[in-house]
Amino acid sequence: MPRSTSPGAFRIHASSLQRRIDRLAEVATTRLAYSEEDIRGRQLAMEMMREVGLEVSIDAAGNILGRRAGSRNLPAIMFGSHIDTVREAGRFDGVLGVMAAIECIALLEAADTLTLHPLEVVIFANEEGQNFGALCGSRAAVGDISSEDLERSDASGRTLSDAIRSVGGKPEELRSSVYAEGRFRAFVELHIEQGGELDRLGIPIGSVEGISGIQHTDVLIMGVANHSGTTTMEARHDALAAAAELVLVVRKMASELHSCRVATVGRLVASPNSVNIVPGSVELTVEIRDMQATRIARTMEEIKVKAEDIAERYGVSFEFLDRKFMEPVPAHPAVLDAIEQACLALQLPFQRIPSGAGHDAQMMARITPMGMIFVPSVGGISHSAKEFTEAEDCARGAEVLLETILRLDGLTDETAAGVAHS
Amino acid sequence: MPRSTSPGAFRIHASSLQRRIDRLAEVATTRLAYSEEDIRGRQLAMEMMREVGLEVSIDAAGNILGRRAGSRNLPAIMFGSHIDTVREAGRFDGVLGVMAAIECIALLEAADTLTLHPLEVVIFANEEGQNFGALCGSRAAVGDISSEDLERSDASGRTLSDAIRSVGGKPEELRSSVYAEGRFRAFVELHIEQGGELDRLGIPIGSVEGISGIQHTDVLIMGVANHSGTTTMEARHDALAAAAELVLVVRKMASELHSCRVATVGRLVASPNSVNIVPGSVELTVEIRDMQATRIARTMEEIKVKAEDIAERYGVSFEFLDRKFMEPVPAHPAVLDAIEQACLALQLPFQRIPSGAGHDAQMMARITPMGMIFVPSVGGISHSAKEFTEAEDCARGAEVLLETILRLDGLTDETAAGVAHS
Repeated sequence: MPRSTSPGAFRIHASSLQRRIDRLAEVATTRLAYSEEDIRGRQLAMEMMREVGLEVSIDAAGNILGRRAGSRNLPAIMFGSHIDTVREAGRFDGVLGVMAAIECIALLEAADTLTLHPLEVVIFANEEGQNFGALCGSRAAVGDISSEDLERSDASGRTLSDAIRSVGGKPEELRSSVYAEGRFRAFVELHIEQGGELDRLGIPIGSVEGISGIQHTDVLIMGVANHSGTTTMEARHDALAAAAELVLVVRKMASELHSCRVATVGRLVASPNSVNIVPGSVELTVEIRDMQATRIARTMEEIKVKAEDIAERYGVSFEFLDRKFMEPVPAHPAVLDAIEQACLALQLPFQRIPSGAGHDAQMMARITPMGMIFVPSVGGISHSAKEFTEAEDCARGAEVLLETILRLDGLTDETAAGVAHS
Repeated sequence: MPRSTSPGAFRIHASSLQRRIDRLAEVATTRLAYSEEDIRGRQLAMEMMREVGLEVSIDAAGNILGRRAGSRNLPAIMFGSHIDTVREAGRFDGVLGVMAAIECIALLEAADTLTLHPLEVVIFANEEGQNFGALCGSRAAVGDISSEDLERSDASGRTLSDAIRSVGGKPEELRSSVYAEGRFRAFVELHIEQGGELDRLGIPIGSVEGISGIQHTDVLIMGVANHSGTTTMEARHDALAAAAELVLVVRKMASELHSCRVATVGRLVASPNSVNIVPGSVELTVEIRDMQATRIARTMEEIKVKAEDIAERYGVSFEFLDRKFMEPVPAHPAVLDAIEQACLALQLPFQRIPSGAGHDAQMMARITPMGMIFVPSVGGISHSAKEFTEAEDCARGAEVLLETILRLDGLTDETAAGVAHS
């Protein structure tokens, strides 16, 4: 039966969605990727998927797929997230997107509503990257994992290949089963914000403009270690004082000059780090995140220029080593529009915001139009047992997810052309 | 034969003094206290002492004493330093003061000159404190080592008691053999400056006004660790940025406000110290050194006041824990005067300077009038293989040492009253 619904026709039951989230937490709140807890969580999720009529399979990368047929021979609309966690995790990160997807399917099933496009619920393996790096499952799905990556070992000596196999994947088939462009009509991911903007503003939905790009640059500051009692202030080449100036410059670039969205020095190591020795060298890492690559580059350039002045004033030298650059990944305009139209139709206030954190969606963007929906994280806390999102906010997010999918499904062929992967 | 010399009558031979310094380095340049290398160095030094006619003994604390009789029954004038070293040491720290003392005795011996006071050359054990803490031998000599201290172990499990015994000391006799007030007329120590002031100014002699007091205060800064991508700049409680402000405040107190002589943050540890987490806490140590205890206290108070403002601006909290305070130890005015009169008599330019580093002299100041003579350290480098003082500068220092001792020796009973321990 093809779709014949009006906006808001599908009412997500907050308590039902919450129960799914809680059931997964009962398995174990911390489920590190490829661990026994992760595997038990995956089994429960697959059970839930089957209960709502999804045809479950595991792809070569170990990602779980649950397929529901559409009425036409079209590419599937994919939605979902991940259920692996960090250590000492909360219950919402990733889990919400998966449980909401299952709840959406349950509603469609209950209403006996068939979409034009097949629907595919996905649970990406190892998003958190506590072993083998982040976004492992989605990277593998789009062909961004090499055979060398597969042979890398974690602390216990297990290779990524072994780990993927332990959750039912087939690493030897990875190459031949990479998701092709055109395989999906779109990918949509519902996720908690992790930041505190929506909570602070009291707005229930974030329409995600994209995933911020990230630059990590290591900085080595070389001064001269010397006796703190015998070396006058004028004779010092204090690497830590110079580093302190740099830390404040980095912060100012984002907080006062708004040259980028966020700028952080999270890691700093002084040497010899002794109470009575003027520090001889400091190593630190500068991180810049923004939705525009040019703003990231300009900010880092400006920091380097200011470091020259610091170097002169403190008699130290700076060495910058650009270590990692991840391009910003904008959401696809048509998917972003579908999300915002869904919010308008459901009369839910929304705010366009960037995602500061990385998500599987950024890998899926390589092969299909991508969009993300955020719901508030209370206090902006995540990756913590204190992570919390109100059941009502979870339900609203799921409603926007379902409405977005139905809108993407209902686009006419003409409008659908706008959703071609750009 | 009593003294009958004019200033400069004793000409120190730079090459002879240098040869003594080099001979000790040939044993091993690094001679950690109580090590095999230290013991071999001590044996060589004792040999040299005997060669110049000193009567050598080892006191209960393991300090080496070399005595030369005087013509009258008076307390001895003591001078010397130490020969133990830090790791990867240079050849001058401590060694100069001992070798110069032996060279002075050699000259008196060659000239057959007897002083009124007995002379006592001392080599203090374990000044550097690579094990068991600094100034060990001089602390023990003046009664500042407890029986608990004696039972403390180093990394290898050896107690201080065992270590003292290994160099010929008698720890069980420590209590009964503490140097009494009045035992010495004065103590004089010649040492390299370790700082770079004399070298920078091109002045050969430093008359040391005293040994700086030291305050060490641990500071704990508590913010909130959070995701660097999802936490906006406004929502942060960045402990490292707050710490950076404090590091610059500490530096400014000495370098711009001249509230104290030197102020240092040498140790700083950020947590969790991860590139993509806003630092949640920082631990650091503030060190203040000055010749006036009130200036040290006032500086630390001012830093605490400024920390309140930083705490408010960054949404973090500061906790200060005063860990160690060592009182400044001024040189005795009469000894300082004898040193400066010696310089004037020898027509050597001198500069009054504080000692930023600790020295055995500060312990001896507890029981006898104390003074110190500094010679230039090239580039202010010490505790390093690059430590260097010109042979000519070493010789000038030794000449001032001898002239100072002769002046202290020659004080009439009336003027000698001014040298009573204040």
